[in-house]
Amino acid sequence: MSSAKAPPVSPLAPTAMPELPPLPGVRIATAQAGIRYSGRTDVLYVALESGTRAAGVFTRSKCPSAPVDWCRDALADGSARALVVNSGNANAFTGRLGRDAVARTVEIAAQAAGCRTGEVYVASTGVIGEPLPAERFEGVLAECAARAEDGPAAWNAAARAIMTTDTFPKLATRTAEIAGVPVTINGIAKGAGMIAPDMATMLSFVFTDAALPQDVLQALLSAGTKTSFNCVTVDGDTSTSDTLMLFATARAGHPAITDPADPRLAGFREALDGLLIELAQLVAKDGEGARKFVTVRVTGAESDASAHRIAMSIANSPLVKTAVAGEDANWGRVVMAVGKAGEPADRDRLAIWFGDVRVAVQGARDPDYSEAAASAVMREPEIEIRVDLGLGDGNARVWTCDLTKAYVEINGDYRS
Amino acid sequence: MSSAKAPPVSPLAPTAMPELPPLPGVRIATAQAGIRYSGRTDVLYVALESGTRAAGVFTRSKCPSAPVDWCRDALADGSARALVVNSGNANAFTGRLGRDAVARTVEIAAQAAGCRTGEVYVASTGVIGEPLPAERFEGVLAECAARAEDGPAAWNAAARAIMTTDTFPKLATRTAEIAGVPVTINGIAKGAGMIAPDMATMLSFVFTDAALPQDVLQALLSAGTKTSFNCVTVDGDTSTSDTLMLFATARAGHPAITDPADPRLAGFREALDGLLIELAQLVAKDGEGARKFVTVRVTGAESDASAHRIAMSIANSPLVKTAVAGEDANWGRVVMAVGKAGEPADRDRLAIWFGDVRVAVQGARDPDYSEAAASAVMREPEIEIRVDLGLGDGNARVWTCDLTKAYVEINGDYRS
Repeated sequence: MSSAKAPPVSPLAPTAMPELPPLPGVRIATAQAGIRYSGRTDVLYVALESGTRAAGVFTRSKCPSAPVDWCRDALADGSARALVVNSGNANAFTGRLGRDAVARTVEIAAQAAGCRTGEVYVASTGVIGEPLPAERFEGVLAECAARAEDGPAAWNAAARAIMTTDTFPKLATRTAEIAGVPVTINGIAKGAGMIAPDMATMLSFVFTDAALPQDVLQALLSAGTKTSFNCVTVDGDTSTSDTLMLFATARAGHPAITDPADPRLAGFREALDGLLIELAQLVAKDGEGARKFVTVRVTGAESDASAHRIAMSIANSPLVKTAVAGEDANWGRVVMAVGKAGEPADRDRLAIWFGDVRVAVQGARDPDYSEAAASAVMREPEIEIRVDLGLGDGNARVWTCDLTKAYVEINGDYRS
Repeated sequence: MSSAKAPPVSPLAPTAMPELPPLPGVRIATAQAGIRYSGRTDVLYVALESGTRAAGVFTRSKCPSAPVDWCRDALADGSARALVVNSGNANAFTGRLGRDAVARTVEIAAQAAGCRTGEVYVASTGVIGEPLPAERFEGVLAECAARAEDGPAAWNAAARAIMTTDTFPKLATRTAEIAGVPVTINGIAKGAGMIAPDMATMLSFVFTDAALPQDVLQALLSAGTKTSFNCVTVDGDTSTSDTLMLFATARAGHPAITDPADPRLAGFREALDGLLIELAQLVAKDGEGARKFVTVRVTGAESDASAHRIAMSIANSPLVKTAVAGEDANWGRVVMAVGKAGEPADRDRLAIWFGDVRVAVQGARDPDYSEAAASAVMREPEIEIRVDLGLGDGNARVWTCDLTKAYVEINGDYRS
């Protein structure tokens, strides 16, 4: 069994953080505004050159945070000049005070950036229900604007400033070509609990120097979300603040492209999708208390959508996740999770694998089942659970982590 | 925080077990068949007098166990002469071997009871995916039939024989009158994990001496399930074996009743509903690792169904349940759970109470919020979380328990 204490850094963290290259049109500064934490940065300010376009995907919560409301409205225009993110306070469920805090924040940021308030995007993460003291941004954001810079250290600092219960910063980078012109994509993310579809990060911001109109950016981002952040879950709980944004500074001098299906975007799309998947996986690898990274693959379902719901039912099952924590090849619980998904399934056609070890076939234990082989798989830090339904061609793949005593400890003590 | 070790008996267990009165037409025996456990009973045999009618409600899992399949088929007839329940092995996902094991079990039981196999009902609970050694019932069931008896000790033994990870036996009794004639209802249940709608017990068996036809029994049982077992959740996981059956021995000499809406059934219906609620609550109070019993009440929803889904979203949220374990009045997580339910909700109309302490109103923290008062509520062993949506007349009430490190420990080690 896992011990109860959460380690300072997830054992699933990458051994080396990627170095993010400079990204023309983006400058970064972080600061300590004293929102809630002391002795660490809690504000990220990103200056975006004139001409930057934005796209976004947000929580499906019926009770979204005030910043999410703001960003949705601001995207109607789509021009972006500044991004302000704070950690420590989510500014969610704060009523009129929450809207006032956003208004004050974008006012201060617009002044610092020399832009309209509608060109400022905001995101907040942390405790829900406590008023955000936006006045603490006064002076801080102007000072950030003055010293904002590019380069690996700035990106790393950005990823750190937006962390809450995260145990490591989450960064990813890709390069691609659009019509032969090189472009860069840099992304950061934060999130460790309250992670579920749809939208599985709390916050993620992706930047590129590509020159793409808002509708193209939005189409690429929405499509990429389906195979990345919408495929990861830690605890099935959906944040009020989930925000994924893509900013394009248009500094890479490639020809204009107006159709998201333009074949010249194939490489860019692939790079963006890969970056989003990498960031989403990092979130699962930093799942609160996580010791195991779990890939759930479902094949042979009636449809992809059905496969996805079954995969999520497995990935969200507390009994499956505690079994993984206990390194127990308890495939009966996988059957249970398939059964409760409510999707078409035929008990007598099911086959189940842990890693390469088939444990069940045709609705019963595999005649060649080896407890030792299955247990060996369960001892690995990264585990694949695969289910074949034997019904059709529907496939899905989602990621999650185990459920350990440390998760309970972290979340029983979060506010106190 | 809770300590990691599960106590031998849930702190939420009733201080005294009810004494179940004799029930004409029902005789009970338990035995040690050595299915999986040693040194404890693992078989319950119930002999039912000729003329007994049965009704049942079963798991909605798409991968039900072999015994569930059997009972569903047997109910087409509805006559019942024997019930055989074993603990230690669920006989689920055992393919052809599972069906063979059921066939062998009912054959042995029918011989012991002197009845048709179609009059035997079976249920199994325990590990999934391992073949049930039905041959161990040979001799055992005949011997049970010979010595089966009635009375409090027999009922208590029955409740104990069907336990798995339960920490206390679950029994309840009611009396009522049908057309002036006294009738008795006795019920037992087991279940502590893999508890979720729809059908929240793993196994529960209710017996009465009322004389009611099968369709009336089924109508009463289905209706009673909606406000009892379908309103309790421990972990959102749905068993492949969930079984709730009602047997009526027809020994109470009241006039024939053929309509479930007959006003002469009002008292019986109320007694049955109360007994089902009591048993369902006992299941939540024995939730694996539970230290707190939580009632979630939702009012002001657009409909009762919507209120129920929101209440279940709260009751199943790992973040809400770990906060309760940590005695943390973290109402922000309640907002999160309302938002993720996907049901109509208006953030700015929400009000939330912990016990009698209103913590949020009109979409923001209550101006009179007292952390001390809210924390005092959280230290109680039984907690009510109430949410008013301010939209309509829809109400719901569900029960759950907290999520502790002991849950993780119990379920990480269950098979080993």
